[in-house]
Amino acid sequence: MKPQNLLLPLSGVVPEEIFTLLLQGERFKLERIVSAGQATPPGEWYDQDTHEWVLLLSGSAGLAFAGETEVCVLQPGDYLHIPAHQRHRVEWTDAQQKTVWLAVHYK
Amino acid sequence: MKPQNLLLPLSGVVPEEIFTLLLQGERFKLERIVSAGQATPPGEWYDQDTHEWVLLLSGSAGLAFAGETEVCVLQPGDYLHIPAHQRHRVEWTDAQQKTVWLAVHYK
Repeated sequence: MKPQNLLLPLSGVVPEEIFTLLLQGERFKLERIVSAGQATPPGEWYDQDTHEWVLLLSGSAGLAFAGETEVCVLQPGDYLHIPAHQRHRVEWTDAQQKTVWLAVHYK
Repeated sequence: MKPQNLLLPLSGVVPEEIFTLLLQGERFKLERIVSAGQATPPGEWYDQDTHEWVLLLSGSAGLAFAGETEVCVLQPGDYLHIPAHQRHRVEWTDAQQKTVWLAVHYK
């Protein structure tokens, strides 16, 4: 058995967020997301049919939730559960380093 | 929404490994494991009914797999898929710092 690494290699330009499927189950999937300063376009919201559990592994990010005024700031090790149809958006991701997320989407 | 953190607080003595259920789905569960130098007792093997995807978040560890001579060393960010009934054991975990794992068990 040889491990793979979620954090490497992350050098180089990341013009768009990178989504990598790590594991596909019957009712869940696990993915890695790499951001490099991207944010959800102004005025747009995610409104997902599945629940999401998300962990920030490196970098940092700010998430906004519909109905909340304060942006939720995530640092490495921070995780959140986002219920299906909880509208949310990524306000910002770290512009100085890559932000790596691990997300579990499930029904 | 307020995040929780997988890596803190981790101070203090950890006489036994700590298992924390983070998320329970219909056919999967997500848990955090914190080790502090523990290993699987000599001669014992894990033989699990479920598949496991495991990610090492901090610390380090050595995993042995039945039929393999080399111990698989995991560093932060390393992940592995361990199929159900793939016999394995934890040969060692870091004695100097806490080792934090994220494990997905699924059917």
